[in-house]
Parts: sequence; structure tokens; C-alpha cells
Amino acid sequence: RAAAMAGWARAVRGLLLDVSGVLYDSGADGGVPIAGSVEAVRRIKASGLKLQFCTNETQATRENFVKKLQGLGFDISVAEVTAPAPAACRLLKERGLRPHLLVHHDLVPEFAEIDKTNPNCVVIGDAAENFTYANLNEAFRVLIGMEKPVLISLGKGRYYKETDGLKLDVGAYMKALEYACDVQAEVVGKPAKRFFESALAEMGVPPEQAIMIGDDIVSDVGGAQRCGMRALQVRTGKYRPSDENHPEVKPDAYVNNLAEAVDIILQQM
Amino acid sequence: RAAAMAGWARAVRGLLLDVSGVLYDSGADGGVPIAGSVEAVRRIKASGLKLQFCTNETQATRENFVKKLQGLGFDISVAEVTAPAPAACRLLKERGLRPHLLVHHDLVPEFAEIDKTNPNCVVIGDAAENFTYANLNEAFRVLIGMEKPVLISLGKGRYYKETDGLKLDVGAYMKALEYACDVQAEVVGKPAKRFFESALAEMGVPPEQAIMIGDDIVSDVGGAQRCGMRALQVRTGKYRPSDENHPEVKPDAYVNNLAEAVDIILQQM
Repeated sequence: RAAAMAGWARAVRGLLLDVSGVLYDSGADGGVPIAGSVEAVRRIKASGLKLQFCTNETQATRENFVKKLQGLGFDISVAEVTAPAPAACRLLKERGLRPHLLVHHDLVPEFAEIDKTNPNCVVIGDAAENFTYANLNEAFRVLIGMEKPVLISLGKGRYYKETDGLKLDVGAYMKALEYACDVQAEVVGKPAKRFFESALAEMGVPPEQAIMIGDDIVSDVGGAQRCGMRALQVRTGKYRPSDENHPEVKPDAYVNNLAEAVDIILQQM
Repeated sequence: RAAAMAGWARAVRGLLLDVSGVLYDSGADGGVPIAGSVEAVRRIKASGLKLQFCTNETQATRENFVKKLQGLGFDISVAEVTAPAPAACRLLKERGLRPHLLVHHDLVPEFAEIDKTNPNCVVIGDAAENFTYANLNEAFRVLIGMEKPVLISLGKGRYYKETDGLKLDVGAYMKALEYACDVQAEVVGKPAKRFFESALAEMGVPPEQAIMIGDDIVSDVGGAQRCGMRALQVRTGKYRPSDENHPEVKPDAYVNNLAEAVDIILQQM
């Protein structure tokens, strides 16, 4: 692996890190750090490399998300986190869109500054327990009532794992609304190119000098590569051995975990 | 219209009628008959034409569905109704499938004779209030736990209208599970060819001597035409003027309602 990366890791000036499945495993209990990841984040910061966390997390405000990670021992601040909700807020403002929100209770404060009267679009996130029959029908009615329905989805994940089992992710509910309204959602978050670009802009590093490290072969690795970045897949989180035979996406390298990735990258510098 | 149909309506020996939107408009209050439809059903029966009701109704057993329609004044019996649940039961038995059910409470008795232990497939119907976050996650976990997920969907409608507003239909939830599990559902009910064929077999009438009358341009009209039947669209129920410009499906004729269809057909005989 080190040999495979030697050719290009030397030029690296910044790292984008996925959070869930790379830094920690999430769960109703708050989750647990992945072995070596707390120290790996510290070593990145000490090395002088630029660092940005690039997550599709939409079950909490960035403030609460960061507090949780700090509680697990991570050196992380709100400004270092690129997440779908703030990106969606920028898009809503730019286009004069007033959302009907179908999101997690704890995410609502991210939209505090946004005009939500007389909605002209629907924003869907991983609403979890808020994905009730009544709430889905309500979001559907708002959409189907528009001359040209606008559906904005905070990510398009299929499912994720929590300590009590697998859960349908926002992508499944996005598909339900897409089909019912014969509309295609605009995805904010990974793997959208614009989302990676805004994370790179936060670091001030061009794509060819950045590496994305994630556990999702499509959203993290494929998305980052389409932006011109190198991308590593960790063998933690939602990684499955079958990912290594993915028909379309091939990471620039595999690493067992974030700690190993940081070892190799820092050796090249 | 009468002129347009004169060429072929004379050969007709049997009629397939959609129910919701053709016989009556459904609703939480039980629904109301569409003007002229009660009498139209009587006239069909008096004419000697064969008659079968072909519905995607999955919110009640056929027994209760028929009772409701009899209460509205319709001359209808259980044996005259072709519905997805009994068709699904035949398919489950043929293939030795044991379903996990995600259906309406009132539909469950249709599956009384079916072995549901240790499920090896998921059957989804219009579960309405049973489409909870927990129930969807449970159906998803059963599916994703299979080596080769089998999803059977009782119809694939996008939405329907009740007296208190539009509701997402089974097709939307089917799409959510399809996406999450990367699987394609097998649809039992209209527009599946096999479903129309079993309705025709009940009447003992070949497709070229039968007419389907429905309000759904795709499921009723398109589905029946692909089976070799003629098909009329009524301008009641979920009919919308834009249906008349549908890019793929063109009914053999439009009629304002069932009563008018029966007038024209009986005139030709």
C-alpha cells in the first residue's frame, strides 16, 4: 500500500475525512470511537496538513454533532465540519426557496434563519422517527401541489447500521417521493460534486492535492474521485469485502483504518 | 364515440370493471357511488354479458370490500372480484414462499391459510397507517437478510385520493424497499398481465372478446391492452384531462362514465 501511494501521497496538502464509520461507529448510545482514530486526528493536525470533516450526518445540528465527537475524545470544531444542512441552507437562499422540512427534530435549528412560510420545495433528511405515515403524506401533498415539484435530499444513502440493527436511510424515502411525484431529487451532500468542492474550499486546497478517506465506496470514494481527488476506503464502518469488487468504483488504495491511512500518508511527507 | 366503437364492440362477450373511480369514489366515510354506476352494473348483468370486477384494492378482504359495495347498492359477489391478495396467495403457494406481511390490518385474513413462519419473502400492500417507521425498517431487515431478496408488491400505484386528501400508495413504499435492497419487486395486481389473464379466466372469455373499463390510464388501460383486450378510460375517479395526451397509452375510446360506456356497448349488441 505504501508503495502504491508513494507516487502521489507526497503532493498532499489536505485531507477530507468522513466521520461515521471512519472516526466512530454511531449508535443510540452515542457511539464508540474506532480504535486509533482519536490519535490519528491529532497526528493530522500536528503534521500541518489541512483537515476538513465531510459528513452526510443529518440527525443533529453541527453543534451537537461536534459536541458528541468531542465527548468521544476527538479534536474537532464546528468550522471544520462540512455537512448537508448548511449546504442546503445556502442553496435555498440562493434560489429563493422556502422549504417544507421532513427532517430529524434535532436538525431543525439548522434551518432557523430560513423562511419556511408558503413552501415552494421539500427538503428531506434522515428524519428517522419522523418518517411517519402522516409526515410522508404531508411532504408528498406539498410536492404534488407544486406546478414543478422541487425535492432536495440531504444525501441519498440506502441504509445504515445502528447498535440495534439496520435502518432505512434518507435515500429510500427520497425514492418513494420521487416515484410518487415523478420528479428527480437534487441531492445535497456526498456524492454531489458541489458538496466536496465546498469542503475543499473550506480548506483552501485544490482537489489534486487532497485525499478523501471514507467507508462508503460510492458516496465517499466515487464522489471524491469524480471531483479530481484521490480517495481511500477504510475497512471499518459500513465497508464490506464485496466493495473491493465494485463494478464502477476503485479506490486509489485500501487501508485497514484511519490510523493506518495517516501512518502511510505522514511517512510520505 | 359510438361510431368509433361500432367496429369492435359487437364482438364483446365480457366486461372487466375497475371498481374505485368507476363504480364509486372511496373515502374514510365508506365512499359514494358514481352517478349511474349502480344501474349500469345491473344492466350489464341483465344483458347476458359476462362480468368480472378487477381491482387493486388491498385495504380490506374481498368479503368486506364486497359488503361495502353491496351497502352502496351494487349487485356484486365475492366470486366476481379479482383482487391482488388472493392472486398473491396462489403465487406464494406455487413457489413455496412464506411471507413477511407489510399490509393493511384488514387484509391480513386473506393470508390466513399461508405459512408465515421463518419468512423467505416480503409482501407489501397498501398498508396505510401500518406504514410506520418501525414496520418499514422491519420489512427492510427481513429483505436485506435474504441471500436473494424477494419482494412481492400488491400493485404499484403512486397515490390515490381520499375524502381527506391525497395518500401515497403502495408503489411509493415499494420503490423505497427496492432502492434500499437493490432489488426489483414482482407486482401482483394490475397492470401485471397474469392478473388480467386470471380475471379473464374467471369469466371464461378470451381477451379479444373482452373490454376493460377503468380510470387509470396506465394500470387499467395500458395493462389490459397489453393483454390483447380493448380498454376504455372513464372520465371519473383519478382521470385527469392530461391523461388524454399520455405519451404511451391511448385508450380504444373515452367515455364520460360507466353508465355511458354501458349505453354504447349495449347499443352495439
